[in-house]
Amino acid sequence: MNTRASQETPLIPAPRITTVAGYLLTRLAEAGLASVFGVPGDYNLPILDAIADRPDLAWIGMATEQGAGYAADSYARLRGIGALVTTFGVGELSAINAIAGAYAESVPVVHIVGTPALTARDDGVVLHHNLPGRDYDHFARMAAEVTAAQADLRPGTAPAEIDRVLGTALRTSRPVYLTIPADVADIPVLAPAGRLPRAARGPDPAVVAAFTGRARRMLAAAAGASLLVGHLAARHRVTTQILDLAIAGDLPAAVLSTAKGDFPESDPRFAGLYTGPASAKRARVAVEDADVLITVGITLADTVLPQLPEGHRIDLAPDEASIDGAVYRGIGLRQSLAILAAAVRSRPRAARADLPPFEALPDTRGGPLTQRSLWARVQDLLRPGDLLIADQGTAFYGAAGLTLPDEAKLVGQPLWASIGWTVPAALGASLAAPDRRVVLIAGDGAVQQTAAELGTLLGQGLVPVVIVLNNGGYTTERAIGHPDAAYHQIPAWDWTALPATVGPAASPVALRVGTSHELTTASYCAGVGRPVLIEAVLDAGDIPPLLQELARALAIPVHQ
Amino acid sequence: MNTRASQETPLIPAPRITTVAGYLLTRLAEAGLASVFGVPGDYNLPILDAIADRPDLAWIGMATEQGAGYAADSYARLRGIGALVTTFGVGELSAINAIAGAYAESVPVVHIVGTPALTARDDGVVLHHNLPGRDYDHFARMAAEVTAAQADLRPGTAPAEIDRVLGTALRTSRPVYLTIPADVADIPVLAPAGRLPRAARGPDPAVVAAFTGRARRMLAAAAGASLLVGHLAARHRVTTQILDLAIAGDLPAAVLSTAKGDFPESDPRFAGLYTGPASAKRARVAVEDADVLITVGITLADTVLPQLPEGHRIDLAPDEASIDGAVYRGIGLRQSLAILAAAVRSRPRAARADLPPFEALPDTRGGPLTQRSLWARVQDLLRPGDLLIADQGTAFYGAAGLTLPDEAKLVGQPLWASIGWTVPAALGASLAAPDRRVVLIAGDGAVQQTAAELGTLLGQGLVPVVIVLNNGGYTTERAIGHPDAAYHQIPAWDWTALPATVGPAASPVALRVGTSHELTTASYCAGVGRPVLIEAVLDAGDIPPLLQELARALAIPVHQ
Repeated sequence: MNTRASQETPLIPAPRITTVAGYLLTRLAEAGLASVFGVPGDYNLPILDAIADRPDLAWIGMATEQGAGYAADSYARLRGIGALVTTFGVGELSAINAIAGAYAESVPVVHIVGTPALTARDDGVVLHHNLPGRDYDHFARMAAEVTAAQADLRPGTAPAEIDRVLGTALRTSRPVYLTIPADVADIPVLAPAGRLPRAARGPDPAVVAAFTGRARRMLAAAAGASLLVGHLAARHRVTTQILDLAIAGDLPAAVLSTAKGDFPESDPRFAGLYTGPASAKRARVAVEDADVLITVGITLADTVLPQLPEGHRIDLAPDEASIDGAVYRGIGLRQSLAILAAAVRSRPRAARADLPPFEALPDTRGGPLTQRSLWARVQDLLRPGDLLIADQGTAFYGAAGLTLPDEAKLVGQPLWASIGWTVPAALGASLAAPDRRVVLIAGDGAVQQTAAELGTLLGQGLVPVVIVLNNGGYTTERAIGHPDAAYHQIPAWDWTALPATVGPAASPVALRVGTSHELTTASYCAGVGRPVLIEAVLDAGDIPPLLQELARALAIPVHQ
Repeated sequence: MNTRASQETPLIPAPRITTVAGYLLTRLAEAGLASVFGVPGDYNLPILDAIADRPDLAWIGMATEQGAGYAADSYARLRGIGALVTTFGVGELSAINAIAGAYAESVPVVHIVGTPALTARDDGVVLHHNLPGRDYDHFARMAAEVTAAQADLRPGTAPAEIDRVLGTALRTSRPVYLTIPADVADIPVLAPAGRLPRAARGPDPAVVAAFTGRARRMLAAAAGASLLVGHLAARHRVTTQILDLAIAGDLPAAVLSTAKGDFPESDPRFAGLYTGPASAKRARVAVEDADVLITVGITLADTVLPQLPEGHRIDLAPDEASIDGAVYRGIGLRQSLAILAAAVRSRPRAARADLPPFEALPDTRGGPLTQRSLWARVQDLLRPGDLLIADQGTAFYGAAGLTLPDEAKLVGQPLWASIGWTVPAALGASLAAPDRRVVLIAGDGAVQQTAAELGTLLGQGLVPVVIVLNNGGYTTERAIGHPDAAYHQIPAWDWTALPATVGPAASPVALRVGTSHELTTASYCAGVGRPVLIEAVLDAGDIPPLLQELARALAIPVHQ
């Protein structure tokens, strides 16, 4: 039919024909996607064939669907979009924790699920990978709890539905869910004619004027102002605008642990990591004593220990701004940051208040490895541009205390806090940013959750530096209660044997270190063009100070 | 208050006091549970402490929550009840595929989730492991899709709710979901005063009489009858009653692959494995040519290839019986089997029809290992009482073709069909039935999904025989479409290095075999008191005949 239409209107170019799966893949490539993660399954092979047909998309077969979800998550943090393909039931449910994590951490992951053919359902056959009965929507209802938009694709409406769902992912920076029946993936549809429509409706001009006026007055009356940056700034790609605002007003800027690396740490305005009462003095003064505190893209979860001043606050969120609680809806981060930059430029220039200097971490070089000497050595190891991927627990809270070189970034999952996230995340990050070095630091309990994906990572020919913190179990939980309980222990693995077991062809290097000096020596192996795993042996009770503070804040009343 | 009440009524024994968690654990122990699987997390430590306090319950810390779910599933198949403990959000969602599998396969798994303290929610704090916002019920709504009963425990109602939910698990043989807020687990409640009430209301006597009359007439008029056994028979613990019925009427009995091992294969009445058109002639004659076909606890999914005669059928299900489509509600398997046994005893004894003999598998001993010679060697290896745990794919469909020794049982997950299930399932089975030998057979792609749990298994001091079928990827998917596609391949692991990597203290034996003769030699190592892993190298395109048939039946239309 499309062919006939083009014959009747020869002056209009013939529409290009693709398939439902092809349309989706074209839109994903347009958004910046080059790698798709997943696991084959009976119902998703037509989608995998469509991926194999495209030279611009690489299929990254994972050991597990959860690994695929985690890899797509970290990939999306660095590229602005990530995608995984799983199969109905067994596959998609194995990935659903990863999708929930992407929702909690605001990451645009597209979960594509191959589902049973419509013809098979019409037959009323009871299908494997389903629960007994003929309800095929159990898993879609589950996915709706943890995704921002969903569609079950059908030939006639697939292009519009794909555009709607992907547009939501990109606009809200949240995961979305697309199901493609096995007999729908290959149905022909018109290829996209233009770019994916993304724009949301802009705010009411009166709201913008009101916000602008009040912000200008507040900033003009203040002796100074400070910035506090959260992770939603990077997710909505406004970190450059934050730096512009800080320079325009000569404002100090602190970051939450979720945004570590999103403000250049060598900039004189950098005020450090803000973690409430656990913060260094410089960050507390900058944030808590500010005449006006401007927060950008923060989420105040329990783990970021909110102790912020209540008044004299300007809060910038992805879809609204507010001043001391008065909300101005529809103003996005880019717009609100531009308004504030203009406001600070127009006010009389005040000298930036002196902040207390950074407190140098005491450096310990001799003796057995401790959390203190470990992190001093990791600090030595870091280079500009590094992606430091740190698992929840001692790894993340140790890494959050480091000073990041220029363009380096701490990547973690502190809000959802699912241990094991980093092994697949290191793979996703390596593929998303192939020019950057990946340094992965994770506890032994975390690596046991996703160790198989180290094999996937090595199988891709990638050369990360992997540091496994071997402290014999769940030290984060030890910090919360009953540190000597048997349930905190995990089976002892031969960690240095792991890389060659799961990636023998990669000729990995593996070293076990028990002293600060040995870790220094081992660090020289990092970056020699081969993957390196360093097993760092630590005491089970040794906890970074920041985590100690956090555990205190989280302590469950019954476990004092 | 309870103390005062007991003082006022001295003639009644003082009620024993326990906690909410203690009440639940008492009920689980009463139902036969001795091992609880799980992973510690911030919100479940009070439950773990309650387990640690009980000498009759062992805590089995797993590497992953999915592994905990799989282990609890296989444990429940052998003990009649299984349980896992996870933490809110991250933990429970990692296990939810396993819970859905327990639902699909009808297994009574109790999923216990530690959730945030009620006081923390009342504070309105935004919590980690949750989605943004103050909705704490996302994951409970997801769990409700894949469990038969749910309760969020509160002090006043916890005992009654626990009894209701556990009663449903035991009566329906389905998974259930219990959430315990961290500040509720330790609240005192009265200990159970009697046994857990389990009984459902019995059927209407008129319905029983109608079923009995019609069944008697049908059986009296028939020259003979045959039995076809499905997995729900074992789940509802009526396999002995089936054998009684077969003996009473001298009836041939075939089994579906889901019930392999649930009828003694050395009994002369055993008619073999029924898999529709892929069946051997003996089973087809017994099932398809029967004057009356009595099915017991079957579910006709696509994977069991239903080709059953439509008429002259008596179908016995867990909660109803039916005759040629007329349904008699409320009659359970135990009652319906007793009625049929009485009916066949009362009719004139006919000679059992001759069935074609079993077709001996051609034995291949020389040359490189093939699917044919592999299964001949596995047949040699089997001993009475073995639990043969075979993963979905070539392993399960190869194992289904074996002849099981007395009391041996094939354990698999062919309906839900989530690959990787067997590694944790081998652990669960070993703990549930410590006197039986466990032989685990799984493909390389399957073992990569859950390999970390081999470490958990070895850490428990267990000594399974593990056979990894190394055929370089997903051969089951190769059978469905595009056998040469790159997406079927997986990273090559050094399989013989795996056991010592994840269980160095267990002194495991690992061998790689590429010929039938080498596999025979390796088999001698099985059962020497140390864990054994045998890597069996097979051709990527070599597929057991039964799987070939199945793949044909499942082939997706677009992939001819």
